[in-house]
Amino acid sequence: MEALSRYLDDHQEQFLSALEDALRIPSVSAQPEHQKDMARCAQHLVDRLRAIGMTRAEVVPTAGHPVVYGEWLGAPGKPTGLLYGHYDVQPPDPLPLWKTPPFEPTRRDGKLYARGAVDDKGQVFMHLNAIEAHMKVNGRLPINLKVVLEGEEEVGSEHLEAFLVERRAQLDADVILVSDTAMLGPDQPALCYGLRGILYTEVMVQGPAGDLHSGHYGGAVANPANVLSAMIAALKDGDGRITVPSFYERVRPVTPADRELYRALPFDERAYLEAAGAPEPAGEKGFTTLERITVRPTLDVNGLWSGYQGPGSKTVLPSLAHAKVSMRLVPDQDPDDLFPRFEAYLKKLAPKSVRIEVTNLHSAQPYITEPDHPMLDAARRALARVWKKPPVMIREGGSIPVMTTFQRTHGLPCILMGFGLDDDQVHAPNEKFSLSSYFGGTKSAAFLYEELAQA
Amino acid sequence: MEALSRYLDDHQEQFLSALEDALRIPSVSAQPEHQKDMARCAQHLVDRLRAIGMTRAEVVPTAGHPVVYGEWLGAPGKPTGLLYGHYDVQPPDPLPLWKTPPFEPTRRDGKLYARGAVDDKGQVFMHLNAIEAHMKVNGRLPINLKVVLEGEEEVGSEHLEAFLVERRAQLDADVILVSDTAMLGPDQPALCYGLRGILYTEVMVQGPAGDLHSGHYGGAVANPANVLSAMIAALKDGDGRITVPSFYERVRPVTPADRELYRALPFDERAYLEAAGAPEPAGEKGFTTLERITVRPTLDVNGLWSGYQGPGSKTVLPSLAHAKVSMRLVPDQDPDDLFPRFEAYLKKLAPKSVRIEVTNLHSAQPYITEPDHPMLDAARRALARVWKKPPVMIREGGSIPVMTTFQRTHGLPCILMGFGLDDDQVHAPNEKFSLSSYFGGTKSAAFLYEELAQA
Repeated sequence: MEALSRYLDDHQEQFLSALEDALRIPSVSAQPEHQKDMARCAQHLVDRLRAIGMTRAEVVPTAGHPVVYGEWLGAPGKPTGLLYGHYDVQPPDPLPLWKTPPFEPTRRDGKLYARGAVDDKGQVFMHLNAIEAHMKVNGRLPINLKVVLEGEEEVGSEHLEAFLVERRAQLDADVILVSDTAMLGPDQPALCYGLRGILYTEVMVQGPAGDLHSGHYGGAVANPANVLSAMIAALKDGDGRITVPSFYERVRPVTPADRELYRALPFDERAYLEAAGAPEPAGEKGFTTLERITVRPTLDVNGLWSGYQGPGSKTVLPSLAHAKVSMRLVPDQDPDDLFPRFEAYLKKLAPKSVRIEVTNLHSAQPYITEPDHPMLDAARRALARVWKKPPVMIREGGSIPVMTTFQRTHGLPCILMGFGLDDDQVHAPNEKFSLSSYFGGTKSAAFLYEELAQA
Repeated sequence: MEALSRYLDDHQEQFLSALEDALRIPSVSAQPEHQKDMARCAQHLVDRLRAIGMTRAEVVPTAGHPVVYGEWLGAPGKPTGLLYGHYDVQPPDPLPLWKTPPFEPTRRDGKLYARGAVDDKGQVFMHLNAIEAHMKVNGRLPINLKVVLEGEEEVGSEHLEAFLVERRAQLDADVILVSDTAMLGPDQPALCYGLRGILYTEVMVQGPAGDLHSGHYGGAVANPANVLSAMIAALKDGDGRITVPSFYERVRPVTPADRELYRALPFDERAYLEAAGAPEPAGEKGFTTLERITVRPTLDVNGLWSGYQGPGSKTVLPSLAHAKVSMRLVPDQDPDDLFPRFEAYLKKLAPKSVRIEVTNLHSAQPYITEPDHPMLDAARRALARVWKKPPVMIREGGSIPVMTTFQRTHGLPCILMGFGLDDDQVHAPNEKFSLSSYFGGTKSAAFLYEELAQA
């Protein structure tokens, strides 16, 4: 155990440099122009899996971006972990806001800046580093490990389920391991037992057939940008509640006991809002900030565009207006059930002077598991060894589409052990991973395999 | 008079080709990258003024884009006309919607397609053709003519007033001539006696300091795109009335006599909406389509942008949201008086969880003159000679910022004699000028000079 710790401490520079190589590949799953980069990134990870000693490593084609699969099964009688992560990243724009280019990883003040630094390449590499360390120090892993790295997490994991179902027997395991969540502060490790789901849509409103002169037509013809704004405004009431009919019908109520639990968490609201650069909290009336981002659903405009966006003025009455509108969902909401109601409601809100189209771009079910499942004890012990304090149990506001698929296909306990921080700028310009989190996470992963071997 | 008509009929190909040369210069005043094209276009027009026989022609620098000035004063004892037009054009985007490139003029089905074809290069060239014809046929013009072609009409004519004031004596005249308005149909000439003013603003809403992950922050932090949508929605009530306090205070009421006048106009609402490709009319309750676009003010979003606009999904909670919002104003509204009230109202509408900025991009006073001013008789006669029917008197929905400046600096009658059509796609992709309007307008201008000489 001491040799392992020493190896981990002595090879931090190599761990960083291996991660940087992966971060240089712009594996943006949403953008068709990066398709070759996706394939390149998958191959790069297969090469890496082989280099650190996995006995099997392959690129598995899917109808979308490929899955990377690897395994090492040399510990008969020991548990088998199925490690899940993703190598695809969010689009990097708006590019002008990056201090250094998104795909040129840059170290600054104890942090590594790049798109994917923490979400999720950095957290995948923590595990690859941990595997390498065990292999180098002991020539073996303490447990059997199967690795699934997907390329579509950021776009809804459309083709992963087919892969999981098809390879169900091969992917048999005792526990699912995922590092794609956050700590509750730089010194406070956390295990996650719940994630929000998502329904991500695009709304198009068409007024006139083409752009018009706003002087000749303004006032007499429906303006799709005004109409879309009014429709978006109507999606929430004055208390910040979403007005889609029956939207809250299946939302589990927050009990007084729940509230007590959330209140007891060492959540620093002030630090959270400061990391966001938000002047002050805002949201659904009657709920705390932590509740708003974990146990309550929400509706956000992620993108909005219409008409003229250049410098100065263009007196155009636009033909089209578009919005990307997503809803984060909580148990037991179901995006498949919600989408047609959302679409029908928008069509009801639209005046007959416009035409509208609503598209379901992707969705994920909300995820929840028992916070006191015994399999999590191994993770608790591993984290406590590294961070000198036990982890807190939290629910998170983000989504990992595959979690409910794992629940359905494998019915296994899942360990969501993540090392992000509130100010990591995930999905935003200047995404970073704190080196202390990266190295601490690497050590936590290495210790987790040991602790699972005792489970 | 017959020789003049014959010359005009025989030189249509040359008139077209001269206009096409001017249309090839992308003189987009709003976009800084076209600054050199603006200078090039001004010089091109000076060269043209000299070629058609003006005795003086010069590019006059201003603090913004240059003014083109020309004169021919060889008719002592005859009236002097001051011809105003503009050589700047609106930005051509969205480019993908153009059937042929905006700055490669293309003839199709009896129309000339290009940005600026009708607004306003085509209507300026009608006059240049008319001047050329008089010069070639008679060696002189029937009246004295001063020509002012500005480069900032589409961006608010910011620097024209200084030019007009500074050169007040030099620009002395008896009547202002402008061709930048429309007919009431391909066979129905019109004279315009009123134009709407404009207040064109840009609104910026900032939520968090940077873009955020919509899962980690959605629901707890103000989303500027949602906030901006709600603010825009709040600017109008359910009847389509603008809610800015005191917005209608100075709007002249529409009297029953006015309504009778409008109703009597040969305005084809169906053709107008068809030209717009608008499924059906929309607008302020209690007013007809024609009233909505002439005697009632309006508020339109001309541009809207926030967050992610690319393909697929990006789960971002944007930091910034922007809108270009313009109001068309009618007598006696005053944009200078309105802007601070608009700004204050928006700031009141904004929740304290966001920061907002409102910028006045440009403005123009609404314009109105007496429809039965005797100076307009010459124009009535000229139009009747060409089109075989008298013109109707109309008010228009667009704005020509300089008109009220002329009223103030010169106190002269203005003849707004324009030849656009509803389906000209002014300010939009595939702007065109019908050749029959172009040639009929050229002839009307030539005859107007003759009729003014009799006035």
